[in-house]
Amino acid sequence: MDQTTSLLTVFGSEVTGTAMLILLGVGVVANVLLAKSGALGGGYIVIIFGWGLAVFAGVFAAAKSGAHLNPAVTIGLLTSDSTEYAPGVDITLASTLTYFAGELVGAFIGAVLAWLAFRKHYEAETDPGTILGTFSTSPAIKSYADNVITEAIGTFVLVYIVIRFGDTPTGLGPLAVALLVVGIGASLGGPTGYAINPARDLGPRIAHALLPIKNKGASNWAYSWVPIVGPVLGAIIAGLFSRVPV
Amino acid sequence: MDQTTSLLTVFGSEVTGTAMLILLGVGVVANVLLAKSGALGGGYIVIIFGWGLAVFAGVFAAAKSGAHLNPAVTIGLLTSDSTEYAPGVDITLASTLTYFAGELVGAFIGAVLAWLAFRKHYEAETDPGTILGTFSTSPAIKSYADNVITEAIGTFVLVYIVIRFGDTPTGLGPLAVALLVVGIGASLGGPTGYAINPARDLGPRIAHALLPIKNKGASNWAYSWVPIVGPVLGAIIAGLFSRVPV
Amino acid sequence: MDQTTSLLTVFGSEVTGTAMLILLGVGVVANVLLAKSGALGGGYIVIIFGWGLAVFAGVFAAAKSGAHLNPAVTIGLLTSDSTEYAPGVDITLASTLTYFAGELVGAFIGAVLAWLAFRKHYEAETDPGTILGTFSTSPAIKSYADNVITEAIGTFVLVYIVIRFGDTPTGLGPLAVALLVVGIGASLGGPTGYAINPARDLGPRIAHALLPIKNKGASNWAYSWVPIVGPVLGAIIAGLFSRVPV
Amino acid sequence: MDQTTSLLTVFGSEVTGTAMLILLGVGVVANVLLAKSGALGGGYIVIIFGWGLAVFAGVFAAAKSGAHLNPAVTIGLLTSDSTEYAPGVDITLASTLTYFAGELVGAFIGAVLAWLAFRKHYEAETDPGTILGTFSTSPAIKSYADNVITEAIGTFVLVYIVIRFGDTPTGLGPLAVALLVVGIGASLGGPTGYAINPARDLGPRIAHALLPIKNKGASNWAYSWVPIVGPVLGAIIAGLFSRVPV
Repeated sequence: MDQTTSLLTVFGSEVTGTAMLILLGVGVVANVLLAKSGALGGGYIVIIFGWGLAVFAGVFAAAKSGAHLNPAVTIGLLTSDSTEYAPGVDITLASTLTYFAGELVGAFIGAVLAWLAFRKHYEAETDPGTILGTFSTSPAIKSYADNVITEAIGTFVLVYIVIRFGDTPTGLGPLAVALLVVGIGASLGGPTGYAINPARDLGPRIAHALLPIKNKGASNWAYSWVPIVGPVLGAIIAGLFSRVPV
Repeated sequence: MDQTTSLLTVFGSEVTGTAMLILLGVGVVANVLLAKSGALGGGYIVIIFGWGLAVFAGVFAAAKSGAHLNPAVTIGLLTSDSTEYAPGVDITLASTLTYFAGELVGAFIGAVLAWLAFRKHYEAETDPGTILGTFSTSPAIKSYADNVITEAIGTFVLVYIVIRFGDTPTGLGPLAVALLVVGIGASLGGPTGYAINPARDLGPRIAHALLPIKNKGASNWAYSWVPIVGPVLGAIIAGLFSRVPV
Repeated sequence: MDQTTSLLTVFGSEVTGTAMLILLGVGVVANVLLAKSGALGGGYIVIIFGWGLAVFAGVFAAAKSGAHLNPAVTIGLLTSDSTEYAPGVDITLASTLTYFAGELVGAFIGAVLAWLAFRKHYEAETDPGTILGTFSTSPAIKSYADNVITEAIGTFVLVYIVIRFGDTPTGLGPLAVALLVVGIGASLGGPTGYAINPARDLGPRIAHALLPIKNKGASNWAYSWVPIVGPVLGAIIAGLFSRVPV
Repeated sequence: MDQTTSLLTVFGSEVTGTAMLILLGVGVVANVLLAKSGALGGGYIVIIFGWGLAVFAGVFAAAKSGAHLNPAVTIGLLTSDSTEYAPGVDITLASTLTYFAGELVGAFIGAVLAWLAFRKHYEAETDPGTILGTFSTSPAIKSYADNVITEAIGTFVLVYIVIRFGDTPTGLGPLAVALLVVGIGASLGGPTGYAINPARDLGPRIAHALLPIKNKGASNWAYSWVPIVGPVLGAIIAGLFSRVPV
């Protein structure tokens, strides 16, 4: 199909959708963890539904660009035998970089909006680890190799199943990927916080570094490459494996 | 399209649907918080699913008027480029006020029905704050400006995504908006109790002021403008932003 | 439409579907409450999803008879302007009684199957109130008038919305009523345990009276009329109200 | 219909889908139970949604073979009046054994992948019972006859309703069986851990026996026949009962 959707549209769509995703995703962690929040102690079940439904909202907001919202999805499609990124969007270097840029910018904006919604609770929170935990992921047990593997496996599940959605038509629309993300969180989220999306981690981490938050500590840049490399690896494997006719 | 649905039908439909929404919405908070309820301590996950499924039921009950159930939705459509409020309902001053009136009357009726269902538990409850908390929202940290911003952001998500639903057809029907409300509660509900609907807060607050409840305290009218102004602001921004072709 | 589905088929279908409903419904309460169960302490959220998905399974099992599974649904359709109980099933005295009989027999069988699945846990349980609580409902605060009202309101929501489902087509199928039941449990279940179905309460109560359970106490027949009268009242009001063109 | 899907395709499809199912299914138990996991204490609600959504993902991954993922489903179809295992897959001894083999191999692979994702948490876990509990099921109260009955009842519900899905068309796709599994977990999971799938239990038990896990104990082979015999019995009864025209 010819390129009928402009790259500016792709950029705007991915920014909007990823901002929505991260507003609600950073939001749910802030909601459940930050001091004095009415949802304090809501627990892991709230977090996994919150992130899943963040994807749900984000997909509606990014309809025009196929709602990647995640560089790992873009990379998975790139390495699969898919012929376009979305209806009317060819797979080119320019479109690939446009997706990446939109996803990262959107993630940053979403994190800033979430901070705005919880500003007084960030002020009231005294634990730097909790504050950073609302923005970015960190490992429960630090072990770079294992953390990369866990992120790669989680992302493989996400990207591989998204690519396979078309084989089993449903009327679920964006609910399918939303539930998939709920499931990945339920099953694989504990060791690394399931970034499974480089933009989801990097955008909010940049926001954490820049925003004026009283009791914040360091942004743990030493770990920041893991939720990039792990998801990229998982996405590449998913894209390649999707070429196997099983 | 010509006006083929009468304003009386719109009024009755919005009263019915909003009453259903608020019966179940006030109900879930009463269910989880009031003394001696079998669901006492059910937690935040029950509250967010209760409110989401309250929307689910309410939308079925208000099929004829497009199920706004929320002045913010009405205002969002008004400021968007939508050409009607529902199939057969033109956007006019009269229809706008009819939606507002139906939404507020329905919310009041729903709160009275919820009180009826939990009458003995309201009698058994001795904490005035808990009693008011089942009817109306209040901030976890009082800060009018921040509270308005949080309500505006939550309402923006609701109204913007509802407007964008049409871009991604699904077979979910009312489940889509129900899940969206579950997600907003999960992610943004803690700071202000996510009114995201002026009628949801004002109708039950009037009911709280009027109903004969033994241990109730004041109805906190000082805060009552926040869950009106915040949602109206968020809805206007959502309606205007929906005109941007992203 | 002519009667094309035999009453024997209706009976068998309702028995099968209601047995499935009550197996899973009594099951979830047993699962969460009985001594030594692996799900002990799963909480209210598990109970409401368990009951909702019990309806989900039951509806598939009773496809041929329109899956009433509940005398209140039958009565609601009877008092509405519906012209048949299901495709090919006329509304007559004989068919009405057939539905009632199938629903009650199915509920009894389902309770026996649930007891079978949890037999060792019923043996291990020493509290008679917990044992009865897995079979039948009881009020959190005993007040017959209030308990009837709460059951009537909950059943009204169920029956009225089920009747209105047709006005808003979706691809949800049995999931719509399942989620509605999750919502009613979330919002209105605490005061009386949301029987909202005379067969759901009476069938298992008879099973409780008959089954050989070591530490069981009395079957609380004094309360047993409430989860019959309340739901019947709510269903009649729902059926009649559904004739109002809102 | 003629056999148009090769047995190699069936094998590959079932391996892929069952590996996905067990990765996420073993994963959710590891996530909620293993030492230092970020999801530690997430509770039973997370486990039942995790297993249900594991099925959801697995079904998409095994589209070409009809996604049995479970020898009990294969046996249920075999004993029902179904004429094929999936579109283009005849019911023969060879195809039956191919399904069994694919399901078992997939389950083993999935368990190994889950171990890989949680490797450091398995290292940190000191309780052998918890470690085995993430791989295989065990009874809350040991009683072989009762445990077989509980597994048979749970599997009956799964297989019977799956066979009946076709009678009530929906747009849910794989979500229907996913929710059914959530419901069986909610309602019947406590006594035996709801294997309801011989491969789900045996594959991971073999993995447990083979994998190098520091503090693991014995693999409890004495119990291992129960989650095979119970589900097989339940599946046969479901298949036969599905021939009854209710």
